[in-house]
Amino acid sequence: MSVMSAHVFDAYGTLFDLRALDSACNGHFPGRGAELGQAWRRKQLEFSWLRTIMGQYADFAAVTESALDSAADLLSLSLVPGVRQALLRGYERLPAYPDVAPALERLRWRPRAIFSNGAPAMLEAVVRHAGMLPLLDHIISVDPVERFKPDPRAYGLVPRVLDTPAAETLFVSSNYWDACGAKAFGFQVAWLNRSGLVRDRLDPEPDYEIRSLDELPL
Amino acid sequence: MSVMSAHVFDAYGTLFDLRALDSACNGHFPGRGAELGQAWRRKQLEFSWLRTIMGQYADFAAVTESALDSAADLLSLSLVPGVRQALLRGYERLPAYPDVAPALERLRWRPRAIFSNGAPAMLEAVVRHAGMLPLLDHIISVDPVERFKPDPRAYGLVPRVLDTPAAETLFVSSNYWDACGAKAFGFQVAWLNRSGLVRDRLDPEPDYEIRSLDELPL
Repeated sequence: MSVMSAHVFDAYGTLFDLRALDSACNGHFPGRGAELGQAWRRKQLEFSWLRTIMGQYADFAAVTESALDSAADLLSLSLVPGVRQALLRGYERLPAYPDVAPALERLRWRPRAIFSNGAPAMLEAVVRHAGMLPLLDHIISVDPVERFKPDPRAYGLVPRVLDTPAAETLFVSSNYWDACGAKAFGFQVAWLNRSGLVRDRLDPEPDYEIRSLDELPL
Repeated sequence: MSVMSAHVFDAYGTLFDLRALDSACNGHFPGRGAELGQAWRRKQLEFSWLRTIMGQYADFAAVTESALDSAADLLSLSLVPGVRQALLRGYERLPAYPDVAPALERLRWRPRAIFSNGAPAMLEAVVRHAGMLPLLDHIISVDPVERFKPDPRAYGLVPRVLDTPAAETLFVSSNYWDACGAKAFGFQVAWLNRSGLVRDRLDPEPDYEIRSLDELPL
């Protein structure tokens, strides 16, 4: 991996551990937590893609809410308002993976950014809660362009904010489709395959595959 | 439902029964058929959406092939070439639902069309195999615009081919997201909810919900 001018990270699943949401779901719906968590995440991605294609943007907080409602509908689970609020608030309190702070610390001589579908307030809350504000130079949300990843107009925000060409920027995501989208846009891309998944038959393929942020070179 | 100038139908799941693919999958992988069929369909939709957002179009035959490979990867099933070919060929031999021919017959005084993600050769094959060619005035594929549904530029083909305003055209789909996309574009829309699903929390909502094509008025 050649030396990069800037490092940009996806947030959910890449820096922050979404499995905390499954545990929260399981607390409210014993035995159904993983199922609800998975359906919630799948609907969240589906709605973000569909709204982008349809040109019917709603921000990621709204998409996350309607995805939770749809997931509960699908599984015939009744969400009382207090539980719904508690689950949604979980997005602001996700733990960072243990390899995140050391990796950001090692990269401190160059710009470090988050680039995420998350609405600005969601991102600021989760970064602040995890104590990561001092380790990040930029928090970039897709929100100003009103299109979710993997729309090239969303990725296009990053080089503008960082004032760095995409080809000199390493983008890191644990979502394979996000890695492909970033590669199609023109970044150098590392797919962070934390749990040993098989890659989808989607292209263009990312440049690198790593298992942990410890494998990111300086 | 007011009188419409033209009737347009989605193909897969709406006119043609995809459950035949699950049976075929089950023939080759006993006990895993429904699981493989579902993963195949999910990957097929995901790849169609992602490629549309990324601007990396490949036609629906190619998307269907890579989706089958990805679904098999995901479930750790080994697809020998003969089985792979047989499963893919299933898309050209899907049975029509029993309510299709009578409905198209009743609507014969006005233009009747298919509008589908399917590649032109796939669509022609399945329509011909089901004996539906005489019952359809147009078979419209998204292929010429190289974008899948629910992209408004895909739906935009329909009024051009039919020379009929979208607001005077009834579009019928069993896929809720397709019904929302068609509504966002400007069609009158009926969601054909064949199996009593709950609707996703997605908008704009279709105008009508029907359980069978028998409920379509003349």
